[in-house]
Amino acid sequence: MYDVIIIGAGAAGLTAGIYTGRRGLKTLILSKDLGGQTASTAEIENYPGVGRVEGSDLIDTFRRQAEQFGCEIVFQEVTKVTKDGETFNVVTPRETYTAQTIILACGKTPRDLGIPDEMKWKTRGLDYCSVWDLERYRGKTVAVVGGGNSALDTVGRISPVAKKIYVIHRREGFTGEKILIERLSSIDILEKIMNATVLSLNGEEHIESITIKDSIQQEEKTIPVDAVFAAVGFELRTDFIKDLVVFDEAHHVCVDHTGASNVPGIFAAGDITQTPHKQIIISAGEGARAALSAYQYIVRKAGKRPLAVDWGFLP
Amino acid sequence: MYDVIIIGAGAAGLTAGIYTGRRGLKTLILSKDLGGQTASTAEIENYPGVGRVEGSDLIDTFRRQAEQFGCEIVFQEVTKVTKDGETFNVVTPRETYTAQTIILACGKTPRDLGIPDEMKWKTRGLDYCSVWDLERYRGKTVAVVGGGNSALDTVGRISPVAKKIYVIHRREGFTGEKILIERLSSIDILEKIMNATVLSLNGEEHIESITIKDSIQQEEKTIPVDAVFAAVGFELRTDFIKDLVVFDEAHHVCVDHTGASNVPGIFAAGDITQTPHKQIIISAGEGARAALSAYQYIVRKAGKRPLAVDWGFLP
Repeated sequence: MYDVIIIGAGAAGLTAGIYTGRRGLKTLILSKDLGGQTASTAEIENYPGVGRVEGSDLIDTFRRQAEQFGCEIVFQEVTKVTKDGETFNVVTPRETYTAQTIILACGKTPRDLGIPDEMKWKTRGLDYCSVWDLERYRGKTVAVVGGGNSALDTVGRISPVAKKIYVIHRREGFTGEKILIERLSSIDILEKIMNATVLSLNGEEHIESITIKDSIQQEEKTIPVDAVFAAVGFELRTDFIKDLVVFDEAHHVCVDHTGASNVPGIFAAGDITQTPHKQIIISAGEGARAALSAYQYIVRKAGKRPLAVDWGFLP
Repeated sequence: MYDVIIIGAGAAGLTAGIYTGRRGLKTLILSKDLGGQTASTAEIENYPGVGRVEGSDLIDTFRRQAEQFGCEIVFQEVTKVTKDGETFNVVTPRETYTAQTIILACGKTPRDLGIPDEMKWKTRGLDYCSVWDLERYRGKTVAVVGGGNSALDTVGRISPVAKKIYVIHRREGFTGEKILIERLSSIDILEKIMNATVLSLNGEEHIESITIKDSIQQEEKTIPVDAVFAAVGFELRTDFIKDLVVFDEAHHVCVDHTGASNVPGIFAAGDITQTPHKQIIISAGEGARAALSAYQYIVRKAGKRPLAVDWGFLP
């Protein structure tokens, strides 16, 4: 039995672990990977107190701190959380863990294109949702899939370096902001392909072409490309908890100003909550908040009032 | 005219400045000092992404980042904020500044003892509200003033090193948590002085004694001490804004999940808000949240919708 199981090992989850660990709570962090979106961020300048840093280095410091304070980190994807009296069962394909409290910190996941062998292409030229290393696109022919802000912003970012850009969108019009759509007209290496869906990526060691289908004329077409950028949005994968907590319309977990959900003992932090402005520092702050609220919940349940946790910066 | 005036230069205010500066907003930070409670914290271990660091060093990195992104920092205490149509006037004893938006980030201030020349004693042996450098108390006779959690926790922390501790409280009983009160009985160097108020500190270069008055027998008494620790709580100094924003019962500024107060254009972050668990990382997260909300407010007011600010970790 753990005091706390934290689901997710990004900025929110690892910070929660630093705080529950330091309070002496027996803490397990379960996650499918380490670092969430922070880990795939090339260079960060605005994380306060650190200055310029690679996302993967920053998250490694988070991880080291969480482990230093006694957190156990296990890489398993959670498939279900159930409530059993006053404790929770957390199910993964390999095991079932139990805990007094849960902190949901599994963030947002870039949405898949839904093509065959999508996983394979992720190491062979298919990228998702954040462009940091522009040099990867220098002189390349790139297909950007999507028509929202993320896709249009990506087109703008890579246009100074790419040789040719196709933007492939399944609808008639773009759904992004007006100013981003207007900017496209000044990009002369851009070709728009509307009403088209992606059927497959093709190539050997690396992407060589993309096959799309026109949804009106039902024609298939294969275009030679060097790289594909999937910007079809993010999704909140919260099915595993959907019978327990209350979500807002956009599927964020609703929390109060202490980070508590509607279920006593379940807290949430980071991109999974309804807080706007997805930023590392905001996720980290929410992780600390959820951790200290979970600590208070446990201490109160045990009939002891929490010690000195609410004033100053005391540890 | 500034886009944003941030009031307070602690973790919340400086982080807000990093974010508004980076978004290109003309930003002024007004504060009576640099660093707030973070600056007076000796050693921090749990700030995620940094590891062990002195509070003053951490806050100096925050400051450098805020200035790097173009923030102006001016050390003046704000005495009044007024609303003038859609802009705000921010008054200090020296000048009046105007801005489109305000971010309140002036935190909590340790409460003064209310003795003559209190300011003078602050550099001569009088401390407030957080003990980090225990060595300062080694072998010393210390008076701890107060009877709440902060005072009792301080007594517990310095008891292993001090020679003698007086705890001086104006009431008959302590107001701190039961477990902290119970612990006092095991501290044999402790002498409790109840129903007593502090009249003065005395000495030349450094505190040599404390004069107290028994509130029942109305007797004055002077006790030789080497140091005085004032733990009479924190206060929110929010008089300057009290005609504008809504507070909770404990005088915290009420904000929604975006960091917005009840007044359009006024945001708040850090210890001044109703968020529990006062921690550097939580204040910093709230600073970023308020900054991005202020940015959205300005862009929307100007008739432009904000660009790409709500997804991913894009700058």
